[in-house]
Amino acid sequence: MTRSLAQEVAVIGVSCTKFGENFDQSLQEMMVEAGTAACQDAGISVDDVQAAWLGTFSPGFGGGKATITLSDALKMRGRPITRVENYCATGTDAFRNAAAAVAAGKYEIVMVLGAEKLRDRAVRGLQREGIHPYLESGSTAPGLFALSANRYMHTFGTDRRTLAKVAVKNHANGALNPKAHFQTKVTEEQVLKAQIIAYPFGLFDCCPTTDGAAAAILCRADLASKFRKELILLRGSGLAVMSGKPFLDPTVDYLGFPSTTAAAQQAYQEAGINDPVKEVDFCEVHDCFTWTEITNYEDLGFCKKGEGGKFIEEGRSALTGDVPFNPSGGLKSFGHPVGATGVRMIYEIVTQLRGEAGARQVKDAEVGLAHNLGGPGAVACVVILGREA
Amino acid sequence: MTRSLAQEVAVIGVSCTKFGENFDQSLQEMMVEAGTAACQDAGISVDDVQAAWLGTFSPGFGGGKATITLSDALKMRGRPITRVENYCATGTDAFRNAAAAVAAGKYEIVMVLGAEKLRDRAVRGLQREGIHPYLESGSTAPGLFALSANRYMHTFGTDRRTLAKVAVKNHANGALNPKAHFQTKVTEEQVLKAQIIAYPFGLFDCCPTTDGAAAAILCRADLASKFRKELILLRGSGLAVMSGKPFLDPTVDYLGFPSTTAAAQQAYQEAGINDPVKEVDFCEVHDCFTWTEITNYEDLGFCKKGEGGKFIEEGRSALTGDVPFNPSGGLKSFGHPVGATGVRMIYEIVTQLRGEAGARQVKDAEVGLAHNLGGPGAVACVVILGREA
Repeated sequence: MTRSLAQEVAVIGVSCTKFGENFDQSLQEMMVEAGTAACQDAGISVDDVQAAWLGTFSPGFGGGKATITLSDALKMRGRPITRVENYCATGTDAFRNAAAAVAAGKYEIVMVLGAEKLRDRAVRGLQREGIHPYLESGSTAPGLFALSANRYMHTFGTDRRTLAKVAVKNHANGALNPKAHFQTKVTEEQVLKAQIIAYPFGLFDCCPTTDGAAAAILCRADLASKFRKELILLRGSGLAVMSGKPFLDPTVDYLGFPSTTAAAQQAYQEAGINDPVKEVDFCEVHDCFTWTEITNYEDLGFCKKGEGGKFIEEGRSALTGDVPFNPSGGLKSFGHPVGATGVRMIYEIVTQLRGEAGARQVKDAEVGLAHNLGGPGAVACVVILGREA
Repeated sequence: MTRSLAQEVAVIGVSCTKFGENFDQSLQEMMVEAGTAACQDAGISVDDVQAAWLGTFSPGFGGGKATITLSDALKMRGRPITRVENYCATGTDAFRNAAAAVAAGKYEIVMVLGAEKLRDRAVRGLQREGIHPYLESGSTAPGLFALSANRYMHTFGTDRRTLAKVAVKNHANGALNPKAHFQTKVTEEQVLKAQIIAYPFGLFDCCPTTDGAAAAILCRADLASKFRKELILLRGSGLAVMSGKPFLDPTVDYLGFPSTTAAAQQAYQEAGINDPVKEVDFCEVHDCFTWTEITNYEDLGFCKKGEGGKFIEEGRSALTGDVPFNPSGGLKSFGHPVGATGVRMIYEIVTQLRGEAGARQVKDAEVGLAHNLGGPGAVACVVILGREA
C-alpha cells in the first residue's frame, strides 16, 4: 500500500524522566515533567496538542486516576484523552492508537504519555496481578517466566551463564545512560551468585520495579518539517493477544512467545521488512528477565529458535554488535514502570535515530524496533520507526 | 473535509446481552454472547474480525483481566486487542479508537466490545471510586452529582417533580425493551416518594448497577454493502476531558457539564451539524441520574441553559416528542454496566436507524447521537451515526 506523507505519522518530540525510585515526584508530577519536555523537544506548546493517549497500567483502584489526572497535570482541559491499558505492553499500544488517529486525519499533533508509580506504595496491583488464577498463589511474574525459561534451557542446553550475559550487557549499556534506574555494571559472577528469586532467575536476572514517565509527540508527516529537521516516521506496528492460559494450553511449547512472533509479522508486513537482521539496525526489547531477551531474538526473527543463546554469546546484540539490543539498558537496567516502558522505548529509538544517544549511540541507526511484552507473555506489541532522508 | 467512502466507517453489526443481574454468566460468558451475536448480525464469523477494542472499566485488580480475557472468550488469538478505559465513558471511547483505526486504513473489519460485571461481587471498585480524594469519604456518585443538581434547582427554580418526569419517561421506554434491566413503568408519585439517596435524588432518580455486554462490528464503508443492505455511517465523534476537581474549581458553575459541550462541539463540527434540534433525530444520553438528562439537553445544545426542565415537561424528549431521548430506557431503566454502556448506546442507535426497535421505534430515525459521561462529569464522549440513502 502506497501512502502519501499526509497519511503517515512522524515522531517530532520525545522525553523521559529519570527512571528509579522517584519518591519526590507524584504520578502527576512525572506526567508534567515528561509531557512538557516532549512538547519542548518538538518545539510546540502543550496548547498545540490536539489529543492525548495515556498509557498507565495501575493508576489507582480500577483505573480511577487516569485521563482526568493527565488533564489536570498538563491543563489539557476540553481535549480528548484516552487511557489504554494492555498489561506491560500498555505504552506501545497507547502509541499505536495515537498513531492510528493521526493516520486517519483526525488530528495533526497528538501526545502519547506513559506513566507509572510502583515504588512508593504498598505491594498490590502489579505484584498481585502475578497471581495466576489457574495456578496456586505465589505464581508471580518471575515464577511464571521461570517455567518457560526452565523448559527452554532443558530443551536447548542453555545454562545460567548464558542468561547472565544479558544482564551484564544491559547493565553495561545502562551504565552509559544518565536516565537509567541502575547505572552500575555487573559481572557475570555477580549475576550468577545473586540470590535466587525463581530458578533459573537470580536477582540480577530480573528487571526492577520502577517509577517513571515518558512521552512522545506524533504529527502528520507532511507537517513534521515545520517542527524538526530530521524526519522520523512510523514504519509499521503490530499487536497480538494470545491465550491467558498459556501454561495450561497443550499447544504452547514453553520455548518462546507466539505473541511476539505474531506482532512482529504484522509490523514487518506493514514496514515492508523481509529480513530483520539486514533491515533493522537496533532493537529495544522487553527483557523483563534475562531469558526473555534471548527468546525475543528468536521470536522477532533475528535468529532461529534455540540459537538465541549463541546470539548473545557471540556479542551480536552488544552495543557494538551487528544488531544492538537494548542500547538504553533495557527493562533490566533502565527499569520498568509498566505503562511508561513502551513509550520509553519510543524515546530511546527516536534518540538513537537522531544520533543523540551520546555514549550509548548505535552506529548508523536508521531503523529501530520496539518490542513490548505483557501479561504472562500473552500480549506483544511491536513498533518500527525509521529515519527518512 | 470531503472523504471518500474508503475513509469512512460503517457499523455493520451490533448486539447486546440482556442487562440486569446476570448471576448465571461470567464476564467472559457475556463477552462470548455479545461478540458472537454482533458477528452474526453482520453476517461475518469471528475469524473475519481483524482487531478488537475492549471497553471495560474495572475488570479486575488494576486491569488484570482485560484483553487476554476477550482473546480467550472469542478465540481471537494472535490478533490485536486494545483495552480502553475512560471512567463511565469507556464504551464510546473504545468505539472512537476502533473507528480511527478503520478510518486510517489499518483494518477492514473490527470489533468493539464493552463488558462489565457489577452485581455478583463485593462492593468495591466503582463504588469506592466515588470517594472523591479531595472531599470527605462518602462522596459517592449520587452525592457528587447531587451537589450540581441542587445548585441547578436553586438557580432555575426546578423542583423534584420535573426530575421525576425523566424517570417516568425512561422507565416507560424501558418497559418496551426486552433487554432492559428494569422493564417496569413507574409513576411520578412513586419516584417522589422513594427513599432519598442523596437529595434531590431518591432511589428512582438513580440508575442501577448492572451486568451486561454489548458489541459492534465496524467496517470500511466502501466494503459495507457486502455485509448489509442499509449503510449506517459514523458521522462524527468527540471526546473531552476536563479537570478532576470540578467541585473545587471556581470557574465551574455547577449548572452542567462543560465536558459534554466540548465533546458535542467536536462531534457536530465533524458531522457538519449546525442545529442539533433540526439535524439530530434522537439521542441516547448518559442519564446516570434524572437531573443529568436535563442538563444533557442543554449541554448538547437542544435547548438553552436552564430550559431543560421545560424540555422534559413539554414532552419534547418523549418517545413521541420531536427529539426522543433514551428510547432504549437509558441508564435509568436499561441499566449501567460501566464499560458496556457506551457500546449499548451504539447498539440502540443502530437498531433505531435500521427501524428494528419494535415498540420503542423512533419515527423517521435518520441521525442518532450517543452521549456518554464519565468521572465526576469530567469526561464526555459523543458519537453521531447516520443512515445513508
